[in-house]
Amino acid sequence: MKYKALWLTDEGYIEVIDQTKLPFEETTVVLKTSEDAIVAIKDMIVRGAGVIGNIAAFGIYLAAKEDNNIESIKIKAKLIRESRPTAVNLMWAVDIMMEKLLHVKSENLLEVAKNEAIKICDEDANRCRLIAKYGCDRFEEIMKETGKDSINVLTHCNAGWLAIVDDGSALAPIYEAHRRGIDVHVWVDETRPRNQGANLTAWELSKSDIKHTVIPDNTGGYLMQQGFVDVCIVGADRVSAQGDVANKIGTYLKALAAYDNNIPFYVALPEGTFDFDIVDGVKQIPIENRSEDEVTHIRGVDEDGQIKEIRIVPKNSSALNYGFDITPNRLVTGLITEKGICKATQKAIKEMYQ
Amino acid sequence: MKYKALWLTDEGYIEVIDQTKLPFEETTVVLKTSEDAIVAIKDMIVRGAGVIGNIAAFGIYLAAKEDNNIESIKIKAKLIRESRPTAVNLMWAVDIMMEKLLHVKSENLLEVAKNEAIKICDEDANRCRLIAKYGCDRFEEIMKETGKDSINVLTHCNAGWLAIVDDGSALAPIYEAHRRGIDVHVWVDETRPRNQGANLTAWELSKSDIKHTVIPDNTGGYLMQQGFVDVCIVGADRVSAQGDVANKIGTYLKALAAYDNNIPFYVALPEGTFDFDIVDGVKQIPIENRSEDEVTHIRGVDEDGQIKEIRIVPKNSSALNYGFDITPNRLVTGLITEKGICKATQKAIKEMYQ
Repeated sequence: MKYKALWLTDEGYIEVIDQTKLPFEETTVVLKTSEDAIVAIKDMIVRGAGVIGNIAAFGIYLAAKEDNNIESIKIKAKLIRESRPTAVNLMWAVDIMMEKLLHVKSENLLEVAKNEAIKICDEDANRCRLIAKYGCDRFEEIMKETGKDSINVLTHCNAGWLAIVDDGSALAPIYEAHRRGIDVHVWVDETRPRNQGANLTAWELSKSDIKHTVIPDNTGGYLMQQGFVDVCIVGADRVSAQGDVANKIGTYLKALAAYDNNIPFYVALPEGTFDFDIVDGVKQIPIENRSEDEVTHIRGVDEDGQIKEIRIVPKNSSALNYGFDITPNRLVTGLITEKGICKATQKAIKEMYQ
Repeated sequence: MKYKALWLTDEGYIEVIDQTKLPFEETTVVLKTSEDAIVAIKDMIVRGAGVIGNIAAFGIYLAAKEDNNIESIKIKAKLIRESRPTAVNLMWAVDIMMEKLLHVKSENLLEVAKNEAIKICDEDANRCRLIAKYGCDRFEEIMKETGKDSINVLTHCNAGWLAIVDDGSALAPIYEAHRRGIDVHVWVDETRPRNQGANLTAWELSKSDIKHTVIPDNTGGYLMQQGFVDVCIVGADRVSAQGDVANKIGTYLKALAAYDNNIPFYVALPEGTFDFDIVDGVKQIPIENRSEDEVTHIRGVDEDGQIKEIRIVPKNSSALNYGFDITPNRLVTGLITEKGICKATQKAIKEMYQ
């Protein structure tokens, strides 16, 4: 298993880690068509804002591979764009790809699409390295402020290398802290209903021998009340022009608790996660409403190590499954980007990206 | 299945619904000894502040049945008192029982213990009826304020008849609303890690045909942001003299979200849940730290309807499992008690109970 969420195969297909099977089975899926890419995004075989964008870009490449006709690619690009509604990197990557392809000769479409998709991934990786640096510098400052020789970081969902190549966004500063020899411990929110924290973040951190403890999503508030958390850091699926943050459902609750206990709350994100067209995130960012089966059923392994899915809600009860919530900018201490750290205000974001 | 959490059998034992099997199996367990009562409390065969107090009281009665010697009963009372640390009704019920028994002749111990335990249950039931009335009156006022002809109530964990005979505390006003013909819908927090919301509250509400939807604990904040919640109501395991509330882990996060969105947040409790000896709940109420297995493993039913337990956290990851958190009184709109509704302040509580 490579420490990458996706890669090109020798045959020119896209191979991805099947994230729905983690941490119980480490298997991969090969995406051969743009339709495969859409299914992988919809069914969350791949997830995480960055990787969704990457797969969207490679989905356009696969569309070119199927038929090097720009009209046909346009139709497939529209379908890819609609595969999930909240993560803006998806739309961002499709738009970059299509802008590049619109005026390319038919015989060059495949080559250009391939190079552009690779470029998007490489640039993401570069951005993650910079986020790692800026975020970890901030961790070191926080340790000076607390006077402790260790740091306890709380994170929600998964924003590691399974979510954004190569280091992730929120986990990037944690990996960097580990590389710098800092004594870092991570509180990993389970992240119901799909348990990306318990399944993906805990697995990632285990692979890198980083100290961590899985906690129910309910627990973080109490840990903050009792002084067991020095900093919170999360990724994002879309951030508005004024710094409102759409991220995995439950993020808002942790931001409230951090604010109430005077604990810094950071959001790590690369440029592609900003949506400069939207100002008021609470009112304007569309929130995905997913299948209730993801709440009523859960996957794990039985005592023989076999993957099993069980029902955990009474048969007569229905469930509701919004994928994201919005953390208003007033609760965000700062945004950690590839350009540095800025306040979550329209002015500061504009200055950083003008 | 009776709609009661516990009852006396003809043989003078205590029969309880096995709440660890709900909602998948409706079975009962007969408690024949004080040791059985302790195991039932520790293993959460029974749970909920009120019912724990009831079983503690009947545990003293079972101790008297085993050996009608006050010294022997005292030793067992101490063990019962220590079976769980946070729910104060447990200590409260044991203290009432022991005070009553201390000066009773040996031959009358059993009879007095039995009558006193029954009295504690009956008084709890009366208190729940009054909480139902006061709470539902408040719901009707809220409906006048919102101008809606229906009410959406969010609750956390289970504070229904499985937790306090006969109507529960937090669910009592909901049952009363249903009896009054009010169009009530309940958002049921799943309540990880033991899922008392999904397993017990959803099951209770299904039994009474009350409209409800199970949501992950992460979801409530978003629902409040979007105006889908009119009022929050929870039970309590211990409330300090100034109105700080120890309740199931995660309650604090919902109180923060309610406060942030200007939604009333009520705590329903009978007298025995107050701990007048403690003022600062955040600093002074002891919080139970339970087995990490409750986080790493989960129980449900497979497609054949068989109860299965599966592991949902990677083998190399550890977990942490605090049972409760503290909601500071500043986040509580009001306390709904058998004496009426009061503010969560030392002065208001003192006036109500002096």
